[in-house]
Amino acid sequence: MAEPIKLEILATDGAARCGRLLTPHGAVLTPAFMPVGTQAAVKAMAPGELWDIGYRMILANAYHLAVRPGPDLIREMGGIGTFMGWQGAVLTDSGGFQAMSLASLNRISEKGIRFRSHLDGAPMLLTPETALEIQQKFGCDIMMALDECTPYPAEPAYARHSLELTARWAERSLSARTSDSQALFGIVQGSVYSDLRATSARQITSLGFDGFATGGLSVGEPKPLMLEMAALSASFLPADKPRYLMGVGTPADLLAAIGMGYDMFDCVLPTRNARNGSAFTSAGRISIKHSRHATDSRPLDERCGCRTCASYSRSYLRHLYRAGEMLAARALTEHNLFFYANLMRSAQAAIASGTYDKMCRSLAPGVAENIEETEED
Amino acid sequence: MAEPIKLEILATDGAARCGRLLTPHGAVLTPAFMPVGTQAAVKAMAPGELWDIGYRMILANAYHLAVRPGPDLIREMGGIGTFMGWQGAVLTDSGGFQAMSLASLNRISEKGIRFRSHLDGAPMLLTPETALEIQQKFGCDIMMALDECTPYPAEPAYARHSLELTARWAERSLSARTSDSQALFGIVQGSVYSDLRATSARQITSLGFDGFATGGLSVGEPKPLMLEMAALSASFLPADKPRYLMGVGTPADLLAAIGMGYDMFDCVLPTRNARNGSAFTSAGRISIKHSRHATDSRPLDERCGCRTCASYSRSYLRHLYRAGEMLAARALTEHNLFFYANLMRSAQAAIASGTYDKMCRSLAPGVAENIEETEED
Repeated sequence: MAEPIKLEILATDGAARCGRLLTPHGAVLTPAFMPVGTQAAVKAMAPGELWDIGYRMILANAYHLAVRPGPDLIREMGGIGTFMGWQGAVLTDSGGFQAMSLASLNRISEKGIRFRSHLDGAPMLLTPETALEIQQKFGCDIMMALDECTPYPAEPAYARHSLELTARWAERSLSARTSDSQALFGIVQGSVYSDLRATSARQITSLGFDGFATGGLSVGEPKPLMLEMAALSASFLPADKPRYLMGVGTPADLLAAIGMGYDMFDCVLPTRNARNGSAFTSAGRISIKHSRHATDSRPLDERCGCRTCASYSRSYLRHLYRAGEMLAARALTEHNLFFYANLMRSAQAAIASGTYDKMCRSLAPGVAENIEETEED
Repeated sequence: MAEPIKLEILATDGAARCGRLLTPHGAVLTPAFMPVGTQAAVKAMAPGELWDIGYRMILANAYHLAVRPGPDLIREMGGIGTFMGWQGAVLTDSGGFQAMSLASLNRISEKGIRFRSHLDGAPMLLTPETALEIQQKFGCDIMMALDECTPYPAEPAYARHSLELTARWAERSLSARTSDSQALFGIVQGSVYSDLRATSARQITSLGFDGFATGGLSVGEPKPLMLEMAALSASFLPADKPRYLMGVGTPADLLAAIGMGYDMFDCVLPTRNARNGSAFTSAGRISIKHSRHATDSRPLDERCGCRTCASYSRSYLRHLYRAGEMLAARALTEHNLFFYANLMRSAQAAIASGTYDKMCRSLAPGVAENIEETEED
């Protein structure tokens, strides 16, 4: 079978690496952050704007798109990229996470996940096979195997049972694959138990996946434990395939994870925070709701080159946010995604020049996790 | 006093004329449609996008901006254009219309309009003098004198009393004016009574305004009566000053009004309809909600050169609309505003070449008012 994707490692710096991920829809420089386009749209953004900021791969949610507009419609419209008018690559998740968290009456069994659609209550069954079928209809560049995202907290016995199920589903996913033009990634589980992470990684990496993801983190566990498990899992993943840390995270998390050797990331943080009035800046996060911005004619970040910072003052953005204008969400989302894209560009450059640790230290003020302080303004 | 604005008539075709309106913030080709930026933002759009479509003047609502963020803040931030990051001209209304329609406990008297803010119930008084003071703080290019927008239906006696009040307020507005860098327009009322329209026009045009508006139309009266009153009012307005038909209207209304000699227009129709899923096309209006668009890979309008039509299929737009994605509102708003801008460009060109009537006939299919049929899809 031809390889649908290929990761060329361009440089390494400790465990960190920068590379070029070749996909059916073009090359993606790594480390790469993927904006989340839940319903085949990154909320508040136009696909062309994501491209202009520098993104070359986005994530979409199989669950949402399977429920509406449905995989057959997307296939009929030429696949997810053509449907959206997005010329870059697309990764879709398997739908399992949302089937368990969003849908009602969900029940997991050896066969798969039975649930009712959160939209109309229609009964649906997601199996490793149907997850593949759906994603193949989407025509995405990278598909994810169905897994059970082990909830936190989980007893060791449950976590072991869960990762074994994920491993059996992983094998079924590979057997169900019929497309050789779409990559398929396997997912390592194991909750917060080192031995289980090792077991799961051994199982999953022994299978013929095109890339490997670390899942089941950022689901409620303490941050130090998340970082410890992420680092441990990364150490088990083969160096010649892309490594994807799912659902992570803050800028500080991303820098830490890049240092562990991860290549790909997704998170709703930059987009969701933007819609809540929170902006990432080189001096830390700010909440545009705060009255201290009322007559501040400065941009969100004087050191930022994004269109929002070139166009709008904090004063105007605060007004837009308070007035409920969509432009507030647009402008803050674009800014935050620019911030994340720049973080990736900086990391790529620093790894190439062997200065990754130094860069992380220099960015510390902007990635400090002073969230609580400003979110509640 | 220096003239803050000047209308150069470039060509006429019957009563229709095209011109260049010189404002403190640049030239505006007329006939000109002004997108409505109620809260210093045209909903779903970025100011730079309006500019790119070709708009050079927008309208903002004094009432909304007086309530939030307030005229002093806008003045402190450099005036409304600087505040918004909008490089073109801005016209603001007087706030009277919203004070009567949106606010609670409003009461009109010789002095002005007493009302309570729709946001926090704060008592406010809008007089001809405060309306000028507020608009001068905004630093807009064109200010509107406070008037009473006579409700429909109105008995002749009430309509006469109302237009007389508007005339006295017009004189007070001119007396209250202290800025010679901002134009001030007077407003003709008179409800649907020809003699009262004549009386009001005579009164208002005898005063030293920089331009004249026809108000009190499109407030519930039958369409033929609206057009009759608009035409009659236009005939009383001096030819050397800009003529502004307030709150009108559909593409067909605009073409009719341009034929009467109006130069300026504003209406929420293209922007509000867009957010409700309704798009103007060269073949008439369509509702993107309709299931017939589900797998339609064509753009909204194959004859349209806007960014939306270059980027998105009807199928994707319908999905975005049903999924509640902001991009639906963005894409449809941009399309509808492009349609309106193009209508103005076509009118300007046709007037210049003496083919205005012919152009109106050729555009008939696209401006036909087949609203009911498609709106309820």
